[in-house]
Amino acid sequence: MEKGLAVVLASGGMDSAVTIAIAAREYNLALLHVNYGQRTERRELKAFHDVADFYGAKHRLVISMEHLSLVGGSSLTDRSIPVTRANLQAAGIPTSYVPFRNANMLAVAVSWAEVLGAAAIFVGAVEEDSSGYPDCRQEFYEAFNEVIRWGTRPETRITIVTPVITLSKSKIVSRGMMLGVPFHLTWSCYQREDVACGVCDSCALRLRGFQDAGIVDPIPYEQRPSYSHV
Amino acid sequence: MEKGLAVVLASGGMDSAVTIAIAAREYNLALLHVNYGQRTERRELKAFHDVADFYGAKHRLVISMEHLSLVGGSSLTDRSIPVTRANLQAAGIPTSYVPFRNANMLAVAVSWAEVLGAAAIFVGAVEEDSSGYPDCRQEFYEAFNEVIRWGTRPETRITIVTPVITLSKSKIVSRGMMLGVPFHLTWSCYQREDVACGVCDSCALRLRGFQDAGIVDPIPYEQRPSYSHV
Repeated sequence: MEKGLAVVLASGGMDSAVTIAIAAREYNLALLHVNYGQRTERRELKAFHDVADFYGAKHRLVISMEHLSLVGGSSLTDRSIPVTRANLQAAGIPTSYVPFRNANMLAVAVSWAEVLGAAAIFVGAVEEDSSGYPDCRQEFYEAFNEVIRWGTRPETRITIVTPVITLSKSKIVSRGMMLGVPFHLTWSCYQREDVACGVCDSCALRLRGFQDAGIVDPIPYEQRPSYSHV
Repeated sequence: MEKGLAVVLASGGMDSAVTIAIAAREYNLALLHVNYGQRTERRELKAFHDVADFYGAKHRLVISMEHLSLVGGSSLTDRSIPVTRANLQAAGIPTSYVPFRNANMLAVAVSWAEVLGAAAIFVGAVEEDSSGYPDCRQEFYEAFNEVIRWGTRPETRITIVTPVITLSKSKIVSRGMMLGVPFHLTWSCYQREDVACGVCDSCALRLRGFQDAGIVDPIPYEQRPSYSHV
């Protein structure tokens, strides 16, 4: 029997690469990348295409949502707000939070999924490591599934799947290693495009995940501080 | 006391103009117009600005979501699908349906509302006349309110308000007349930008609404078939 189709939101980072690997076991892939005006978009887009090539994705779509930078409010898109140095102990919502970003990306994913006839939308959201982002919580995705049920054609059946949402970053690394995920092709840094800075929130979470998993992250860093828990 | 702020989704059409008039009684206005690659965008945008000027809107934002036309699937954005002549008796979803369009527009409205600190988002969705569009139903907006609750900052309180959703088109015309809505500045035709065609779905619903309300629609039409119920 021909596999069904799943749309996977793919940033080019490690969480979405592992999510693609999980989706690929059951579905043909339709990979969606969203440019929302983030500083490192050029490098992320290269990572997206490299990972999409690796998995031989059947469909791919790159969407510009630069309106999210018009709306402002985030250090990722608003150059008047500096990207802060990671503080993994800090409580609250990081300056990199783009208001309601994931809902914007899910909305276009649903539009595309409905046109393609896809059965699922995979998202590599991670609740624990992104505890500061309200739109990475499981309840948010459950509520969004209700919106999909009401807001699409009666015959449309699309479910959001978040296979890594409850995993720690180190578990995501281990799962990815088992699945043969090409981590060397991925990109996570919020700040630089040549070598990863090693000190922004995203680098710190990634490095800590690899360190806790006992694996050397294969991408180049300017510096590799120790963030390990273990 | 200073009025609070509301974001209003404003297409330039009559339903959103009446919605603006209703919102303006309680709120300062932040008007959001979305270009999603529709054929008549140039004319709609003029109507949006004309109505925004009329109400002296405090904030306005025009957003391009042309990715919705990349996704395809609608006669409004995909020029390979013809705009059909209205058949107000036909069941099912019209060819003009843009998959999950309203969710895409709401998502950006929420992002903007969160940055502005707005308390409400007004949407001129109409359930009855647009019964073919799944994302015009009240349950869809209720489900979206849950998504907002989970997906925004804990201190954020934004509620979607749909003040005309249960009204017939003729009731919307009467309500608008009472509120002094500048219908002559609005635009609804899906097909033409000089004079309204009078025969697409949107023109037919609009003309029927004015005819049922016993009022002459002040915009120019190429033809004005009789669609009246009464």
